[in-house]
Amino acid sequence: MIHEKSSSASRKNNKPSFTYLVEKKRDGGEFTEDEIRFIVDSLLDEVMPEMQVAALAMAIYFKGMSAQETAYFAEEMMLSGEVCDLGRIAKPKITKYACGGVGDKTAMVLPALAASCGVIMPSMMGVDEDYLITTLEKLEAIPGFKADIPLKQFSEQLAKIGCAIVRQHKDIAPVDTMLYALREKTGTLPSLPLITGSVLARKLAEGAEGLVVDVKSGNGSHVKDVEQAKQLARSVTRVARSMNRRCVALVSDMNQPLGDCVGTGLEIQEAVKLLKGEGPEDLKELVLKLGMEIVRLAGVAGSTLSAKQTIEKHLKDGTALKKFRDMVVAQGGDGAYIDNPEKFTKAKYVRKLAAPKRGYVHTINAGMIAKGVQILATNKKGQLDAGAGVSELKKIGMQVKQGEPLMMIHYNDESKLDAALEQLRGAYRLAPKRPGAPSLIIERVA
Amino acid sequence: MIHEKSSSASRKNNKPSFTYLVEKKRDGGEFTEDEIRFIVDSLLDEVMPEMQVAALAMAIYFKGMSAQETAYFAEEMMLSGEVCDLGRIAKPKITKYACGGVGDKTAMVLPALAASCGVIMPSMMGVDEDYLITTLEKLEAIPGFKADIPLKQFSEQLAKIGCAIVRQHKDIAPVDTMLYALREKTGTLPSLPLITGSVLARKLAEGAEGLVVDVKSGNGSHVKDVEQAKQLARSVTRVARSMNRRCVALVSDMNQPLGDCVGTGLEIQEAVKLLKGEGPEDLKELVLKLGMEIVRLAGVAGSTLSAKQTIEKHLKDGTALKKFRDMVVAQGGDGAYIDNPEKFTKAKYVRKLAAPKRGYVHTINAGMIAKGVQILATNKKGQLDAGAGVSELKKIGMQVKQGEPLMMIHYNDESKLDAALEQLRGAYRLAPKRPGAPSLIIERVA
Repeated sequence: MIHEKSSSASRKNNKPSFTYLVEKKRDGGEFTEDEIRFIVDSLLDEVMPEMQVAALAMAIYFKGMSAQETAYFAEEMMLSGEVCDLGRIAKPKITKYACGGVGDKTAMVLPALAASCGVIMPSMMGVDEDYLITTLEKLEAIPGFKADIPLKQFSEQLAKIGCAIVRQHKDIAPVDTMLYALREKTGTLPSLPLITGSVLARKLAEGAEGLVVDVKSGNGSHVKDVEQAKQLARSVTRVARSMNRRCVALVSDMNQPLGDCVGTGLEIQEAVKLLKGEGPEDLKELVLKLGMEIVRLAGVAGSTLSAKQTIEKHLKDGTALKKFRDMVVAQGGDGAYIDNPEKFTKAKYVRKLAAPKRGYVHTINAGMIAKGVQILATNKKGQLDAGAGVSELKKIGMQVKQGEPLMMIHYNDESKLDAALEQLRGAYRLAPKRPGAPSLIIERVA
Repeated sequence: MIHEKSSSASRKNNKPSFTYLVEKKRDGGEFTEDEIRFIVDSLLDEVMPEMQVAALAMAIYFKGMSAQETAYFAEEMMLSGEVCDLGRIAKPKITKYACGGVGDKTAMVLPALAASCGVIMPSMMGVDEDYLITTLEKLEAIPGFKADIPLKQFSEQLAKIGCAIVRQHKDIAPVDTMLYALREKTGTLPSLPLITGSVLARKLAEGAEGLVVDVKSGNGSHVKDVEQAKQLARSVTRVARSMNRRCVALVSDMNQPLGDCVGTGLEIQEAVKLLKGEGPEDLKELVLKLGMEIVRLAGVAGSTLSAKQTIEKHLKDGTALKKFRDMVVAQGGDGAYIDNPEKFTKAKYVRKLAAPKRGYVHTINAGMIAKGVQILATNKKGQLDAGAGVSELKKIGMQVKQGEPLMMIHYNDESKLDAALEQLRGAYRLAPKRPGAPSLIIERVA
């Protein structure tokens, strides 16, 4: 527009200037593979000034990136760090990405289930919304369990057991780590291509050939809006395809907690049930659906029917649970807690949250449930109390009489109860009429 | 959109967080006066991280700012530094802003002309396109002339003589200086509200009550497009009005050099002619039109007719020229060069640029003329040769025979001629048919 000196002239050594690149994206241009590589290399070498990175990120926020551009971007970000080499393992390798959800135990269950079906499933966990209990925090409730293991050991465990759930290693996609920190401060987190690039760079660095995605949408996810969830699902699958990776995405409902409980110890117990083919219906369905996607994407099952049979078989015959136990033990955890989940410390107090009136559960704010549990479970050192949490959650559509429990509250520190109750009580809306049953799987994108 | 933690919660001490401010503008929000003040203060104190400034500037590029927001922004940027206090001078004070043009001598002429009419006209000059000879470079061709004088002396000279043309002082709008440097690198120079804020912050810091704007549009200006020129003219007048300042803007044609010559010494000689009411028609018209706007805005003349009479009187009776001489002498320049402009060193060589064929001058690329002169005039030390330049320029619509001069080329360094000729020759397009006469004043915005 006005007042501009052209920056294209300032290219030196055939390398574009940073200002030129910012202006190109600002004007809606599409970066070439070389330009993307130059940008990512410059980020890695810390030679691109932060102000220009920030301006570029904001220009991408407004102008987007094509699927091809995003694929180059994800690929280069992946290659900016270590990439697990699982090539010598002669089995299909599939990983999974989910945005975190309240009460979601699938991330604990699926790697072992996949491994029992003959699919290698690496699983590195990153950061999430700070009020969500992460999968690693849950697993760390098992005495001895280690989430931080060297990359070499990660690969070895995958070769031996078929699954591993670890914390994201600092050498994985380091450019994404740097960029994420900048995006947090510059209002550029919510850019679809930047999110997509980040997800694919990290997940594919785990060494998998294919990716199953679970985009959770609703009040318990950071993706509040279902249209945005669909966009993210489509973006990730489209870009993964541009990268020649197999990918399928489900958009699933996160407008109430998944399963019957929230809390580290309680959730492991529910995970163990799921691994036996038991447990609450919604999670059983989600484990089945995601598990079927994994085995089909891996080529282990050819048809929907055989995928279903494969999953159900390994849940019923105990092999999925055994894989889970093997994984926990391989990572230093005490297998006795898996064999006897009642070993988890119980909370000193258990009380009901009484329904204030009779009616049907109309809506549940899953985010408020998570915050309530966070208040109950976080001690002064910022650690999580394994016994604290909520269980026997009433779900949407269930009928309650006045005074009947909406949930049971497990806690050790009485001083926190009032603050937690404010969240937990506030999370429930009762109505005289039964609401329509929410459907768990909203869309499948392949 | 997706994946976002709200930043509004991170307000501390009632001050918004920088991330919140970036997100607010990204989402199209309008900043309050307090928010604008906080941003400008944070820039001045260098506490706002550059990455957030850059992201904010890019968000403003895409989402704009309202006239009110831009007015707050200009006001706060102005107050970030020194503001000349001309309050004790009991005369109207008007300043002028123009985007630079090729061969434009009005910036030399108008301050003296205004002063002769009883209007105080401060004039601080900033940076411009690097191929343009600046007004200060022209004046510095007068032996002894000083463009860098203390602010106190600037005010005193304005009180005594009524005009002063100086280099922008570093204490004027320092935040704009910082922001401009960042905008240059982050693709955010061409933002209308940022340009408007910058212009008004700087010009109003000179202490004037009103502003006359000359937005030049065409191949010799950095505003190539006439629609953009109109937008800038409207933006500056609208925002100036929000700041309770009188303002009028002209959009003028810059698709050929103004006047008959380009080059420091040559241009001063033409300026002296204009101050006597002589000289080329286009510049005489522009001096008259801008002069009339100045005296009317100042309230010195009530009607268009009396404004015209006032201007013409002071050009004819020698008072405008005398003011110019007084100004030059007050700033250390040798007045003899004004009295006898032939004192300017002549170039060793003068040769014609012959028309390659007969025809009418159809178009002139003024930017190429400027670049040609820059090549001729710049010595090894980067200084300008006062004798070098071009004169007797044929203008659009003039008829030439083959071999007749399109211009006379003045130069001292023969080694530069070929490179200069490439620009100068390339600037002219001849056609067999007389083109429509371009109109000098394209729009008036009040």
